[in-house]
Amino acid sequence: MPLSKNKIKYIHSLEQKKTRKEERNFLAEGPKLVDDLLGHFPCHYLAATNEWLNEHSSIIADEIAVVTTEELSRASLLKTPQQVLAIFEQAKHNIELEKAQRSLSLALDDIQDPGNLGTIIRLADWFGIEQIFCSPGTVDVYNPKTIQATMGAIARVKVHYIPLPDLIASLRGIPVYGTFLDGEDLYQKPLSEAGLIVMGNEGNGISKEVENLVSHHLYIPNYPQKRQTSESLNVAIATAVVCAEFRRQMIIPKQL
Amino acid sequence: MPLSKNKIKYIHSLEQKKTRKEERNFLAEGPKLVDDLLGHFPCHYLAATNEWLNEHSSIIADEIAVVTTEELSRASLLKTPQQVLAIFEQAKHNIELEKAQRSLSLALDDIQDPGNLGTIIRLADWFGIEQIFCSPGTVDVYNPKTIQATMGAIARVKVHYIPLPDLIASLRGIPVYGTFLDGEDLYQKPLSEAGLIVMGNEGNGISKEVENLVSHHLYIPNYPQKRQTSESLNVAIATAVVCAEFRRQMIIPKQL
Repeated sequence: MPLSKNKIKYIHSLEQKKTRKEERNFLAEGPKLVDDLLGHFPCHYLAATNEWLNEHSSIIADEIAVVTTEELSRASLLKTPQQVLAIFEQAKHNIELEKAQRSLSLALDDIQDPGNLGTIIRLADWFGIEQIFCSPGTVDVYNPKTIQATMGAIARVKVHYIPLPDLIASLRGIPVYGTFLDGEDLYQKPLSEAGLIVMGNEGNGISKEVENLVSHHLYIPNYPQKRQTSESLNVAIATAVVCAEFRRQMIIPKQL
Repeated sequence: MPLSKNKIKYIHSLEQKKTRKEERNFLAEGPKLVDDLLGHFPCHYLAATNEWLNEHSSIIADEIAVVTTEELSRASLLKTPQQVLAIFEQAKHNIELEKAQRSLSLALDDIQDPGNLGTIIRLADWFGIEQIFCSPGTVDVYNPKTIQATMGAIARVKVHYIPLPDLIASLRGIPVYGTFLDGEDLYQKPLSEAGLIVMGNEGNGISKEVENLVSHHLYIPNYPQKRQTSESLNVAIATAVVCAEFRRQMIIPKQL
């Protein structure tokens, strides 16, 4: 069955947060990503080239359409459409507070860029961080740009939306880390195995309200050290450097 | 003088690499970025709101236009235009081989995403890496998305295009690092103070030809370690983790 105009319109409507919220659906494109998500999220619709479908004989989806590359281009949100796109149902995860109390988690305070959020989910997966807590003002995790940037990690990392002060109150007792330009050198501090790492908004950093709840102020040393510059790091980059150091200290704990 | 249709057309044409190359110009938008670039690159044209111009009385540019926010929106390539945009002349840097032989540099082997390149330039600035060598197949550094993502770091980091095998031949003798899934644990190796760190293409990694010239194969440990997954790290994220570790070892050299 070829792609109807209505279907294409529906696919494009999933660029809008409002529609995604009403429909509880999201869009994913490309073989690697769709492969990773199938089996983790119910698939309501899948459109793929004959070639792709021949290699995937046991797909479970409510509706499957064989499409030409040209039809796929019309439906796709990508510059370079790739063989397959699919509509999945959004996950409903419960917050696992006990797990958060005995492991490392991330909290994102109003991250705005969908690519940054996706990249952070991908690196959380690499560093074995299972839960990410987003302030309600953080960009929607089901934004197609976020989903694409996760490269499939969204199937493994659980993302929750919750006011961060409420979360921190529930986690009472665990260390809360944040990065600040006047914080203490990340490499000079022993880091805990369980804790919450808060990362702030791209332009404004961590909000005042959340900053008051941060127990450990960290600083990523630049080089040469502490030179005066106007520069800063992209939030996903800063998250990666901090998470890598937490994990390095867990792997090589006695050397610090 | 308001923005003419021709001027808007010219600004938009700078999205095309071909035009940028012919004109040897590039576009930058927003107060932070334009502030950082003024003084570092000759400014041929600047369009700004009255408010911005009142705060910047000593701008040197071949042509300055006072524009309304509405006019700026029509000219801007950004979703949210911000007070000022400017056209600068591209820099002509000579490669500093001696500096590359006694410090840390980056080599990018066909990075495709303009945002990734910009983010890498920004983090290089943070970590005091003064030269980045790009393979001829790497995305153009003057792509507007790259320039925006550098957040001004393009004023401080020098970016050169050169076939990487030629570069490595000229640098004969310095260690050449690359990241590979079967490389050695980054944290278990003493890293040198001078060297070239090669980062590969988003989909295909480091090309075979360049891989043969890499003297040290590194691996960024995931967590829990060496678990079987299909995941990987975004190239800008991997670059950050590697550069941070090189700098950590320079700051705390005796502890490894």
